[in-house]
Amino acid sequence: MNSLPASTATVPLRVVDVIRKKRDGQELSRAEMEQLVTGYTRGEIPDYQVSAWLMAGVLRGFTRQETAALTDVMLHSGQVLDLSQFPPKKVDKHSTGGVGDKTSLVLAPLVAAGGLLVPMISGRGLGHTGGTLDKLESIPGFNVHLSLAEFRRVLGSCGCSMIGQTEEIAPADRKLYALRDVTGTVESPYLICASIMSKKLAEGIDALLLDVKTGSGAFMKDEAQAALLAELMVETGERMGKRVVALITDMDQPLGHNVGNALEVAEALEILRGGGPSDLRLLSLELAAWMFALGGASDSLPEGRKAAVQLIDSGRALEKFRAMVELQGGDLSVIDRPGELPRSNHSLEVASPRNGYVRTIASEAIGTASVILGGGRERKEDSVDPSVGIVVHKKIGDAVQRNEPLVTLYYNSESRAARARRLIDESYQISDAPPGKPRPLVRRVIQASGGN
Amino acid sequence: MNSLPASTATVPLRVVDVIRKKRDGQELSRAEMEQLVTGYTRGEIPDYQVSAWLMAGVLRGFTRQETAALTDVMLHSGQVLDLSQFPPKKVDKHSTGGVGDKTSLVLAPLVAAGGLLVPMISGRGLGHTGGTLDKLESIPGFNVHLSLAEFRRVLGSCGCSMIGQTEEIAPADRKLYALRDVTGTVESPYLICASIMSKKLAEGIDALLLDVKTGSGAFMKDEAQAALLAELMVETGERMGKRVVALITDMDQPLGHNVGNALEVAEALEILRGGGPSDLRLLSLELAAWMFALGGASDSLPEGRKAAVQLIDSGRALEKFRAMVELQGGDLSVIDRPGELPRSNHSLEVASPRNGYVRTIASEAIGTASVILGGGRERKEDSVDPSVGIVVHKKIGDAVQRNEPLVTLYYNSESRAARARRLIDESYQISDAPPGKPRPLVRRVIQASGGN
Repeated sequence: MNSLPASTATVPLRVVDVIRKKRDGQELSRAEMEQLVTGYTRGEIPDYQVSAWLMAGVLRGFTRQETAALTDVMLHSGQVLDLSQFPPKKVDKHSTGGVGDKTSLVLAPLVAAGGLLVPMISGRGLGHTGGTLDKLESIPGFNVHLSLAEFRRVLGSCGCSMIGQTEEIAPADRKLYALRDVTGTVESPYLICASIMSKKLAEGIDALLLDVKTGSGAFMKDEAQAALLAELMVETGERMGKRVVALITDMDQPLGHNVGNALEVAEALEILRGGGPSDLRLLSLELAAWMFALGGASDSLPEGRKAAVQLIDSGRALEKFRAMVELQGGDLSVIDRPGELPRSNHSLEVASPRNGYVRTIASEAIGTASVILGGGRERKEDSVDPSVGIVVHKKIGDAVQRNEPLVTLYYNSESRAARARRLIDESYQISDAPPGKPRPLVRRVIQASGGN
Repeated sequence: MNSLPASTATVPLRVVDVIRKKRDGQELSRAEMEQLVTGYTRGEIPDYQVSAWLMAGVLRGFTRQETAALTDVMLHSGQVLDLSQFPPKKVDKHSTGGVGDKTSLVLAPLVAAGGLLVPMISGRGLGHTGGTLDKLESIPGFNVHLSLAEFRRVLGSCGCSMIGQTEEIAPADRKLYALRDVTGTVESPYLICASIMSKKLAEGIDALLLDVKTGSGAFMKDEAQAALLAELMVETGERMGKRVVALITDMDQPLGHNVGNALEVAEALEILRGGGPSDLRLLSLELAAWMFALGGASDSLPEGRKAAVQLIDSGRALEKFRAMVELQGGDLSVIDRPGELPRSNHSLEVASPRNGYVRTIASEAIGTASVILGGGRERKEDSVDPSVGIVVHKKIGDAVQRNEPLVTLYYNSESRAARARRLIDESYQISDAPPGKPRPLVRRVIQASGGN
């Protein structure tokens, strides 16, 4: 008889009641969210109750109201930066993660050069994707572990700074994320939204540009899923009084050519010098134009794009990058001589088995191959090798001859190179005819109040 | 970027994979169930992973195959009794819990008197319902905490024994149940089925009769819910090679008149003496007839009913009860003089506010009132007062005059009596016209392979 529901006679356990309410698909109040999240962050509510609640949330979903409340509670679990001492508008960009996406390295100095403040708190590589902090650390001496006081000082000096999450920022998210990771409760657009937005809004920004990736190299392979997450984040940000726009962008192939930490820094420097691959340059200019628009630094997107081009051509964007690297302790010599960035001992070309055209690239496999080479972490405790990675020579639509190189692997371990190579061998689909017209890099723009 | 799904590049955590599989609505293999449940029972898998999995199971459900596998794994987490040294067929009965349901006290001796072996491992009161162990302990000296060796000895001597769950029986269920209780994961017919069946099948029985209660005093108010649970338990038992039949029985009003521990023992003794309330006698005879049929002690239900009547009329059922009480250390004097059972110091009649007919009884409120008087536990750490309870004078369809007593409360605390009385005052619905024909006590019979 001890296997049936507790009746009204038992004294109610409030946490259980909140869990049951979400389990039964009812909307939780802000007070209930706060009780749960704050109690958990303080160690008063055990992991096993929160994980049951998270799973109920993954399967039942959350309303927009709940998602905003959860974000707000997580945001206020820690310190929210007040950067009002600085006159410029504070604008940041967040990407949901892709392969070869080094736009943050371009955008922070570029947008700061345009007069806005860019207080960027970034993450490490996750899964098959690279992380901005890992890339920055391939610059010898670059310190991503600034205190919030030092962060503020760098921002004041050069208008941008790029650091890792500190203890003070959204501690509820750190604790919840660690629990989600081991309880199968990561994959919820509502929980992902609350996690991203609570950290980003803690930066004390006025506006946020979201780059939501979709395609073979993104976490959300499906555009509808990506759009749902984008809408949730835009609405949540707007409910909290911030200007938020999301671009759904293509991740069906790596962005630019270089995948891997030092390789990506080198390619970002090419963009800041006015060169670099056309897709990476195009997306960087587009994202910068949106950030300028969001921060009121330009009146229109075309004007913003033009400003971004001028800031690159004049060298001002590169100078901002140099100033930031210097303020954060990095070795400036690599900026002028990217050949001095860490380099692997070996390289290996992977050639095309046939003539034809590149039809698809299994981009997650490219990202995973870079992780296997040592560019990311297969286990949490792994260290990252800044020098390794992959250069992608052939992209979708490119003509290719038999034995012509598709990619080059840069590596320090033969066994890792062999494992990575097996993935690469299966990642290119070559067809006789060229594929149709490529899809646009920016697939959709999602903004509040009826914007397209 | 650290808020998105882990990719294939990370080393798979197997427990997380099992959780995700259930989360995504896929069927788990027996090996996966075993890994999870056995690992948890051994303390190798943490609470927080199991609670997430339980919540996924509550919301996604389990297939029949999974339910049987889970039951089997839980069953084999501990000792399964082997009673093959005893020639008779071993048959038990389990009730899902009701108000005033004391049939176990009648059936164990009655069915043993009919030549079958009844190894009954029972539970405590839960929620608003009474528990067989609490009732038995109102007999001074009666020991429900026998070792399995003592249990076997009593069974060998008199053919029936009634004890509580021991450490050796289904430890996985004990641990899982404690977790379910605090994580909002109790209310799943699949998990309830696995919990009940794993404990009952550990008794080493050949056949099991399930009394699945439905109505205002049951956990499952809705008959369809009760039928789903019944079907799951019947199918699970049959898959495990046992004969299992479930009766869906009425719990729209308390069974018999007496609710409370000593009061229920006294009423069970009336039945064993050939008297007692007609509904309680009828259900006892019906359940006994089914147990005889399941154990091959009678060829048909009518024959089984007749045998049950004769075993009562001849006094042999009462003698079995006496023998069991003696073997388990109980005071035999209360059997001949039930007036010597524990009695409360005070009593209070609750009278009808008007003339009319009893239309409905909020039976959960009656059970809760008995708990409040001290007949059950409002908190886990509470002790039970064997002497208190409620005698129900008026049942559904009975004519009642204004100021005529509906129930009598037996109590030892004025403040508890006042709280209980408030519940009783609202539990009777009296109407001018008599209600329609009552529903049958046994609403449906659910058995395997096409039985109705």
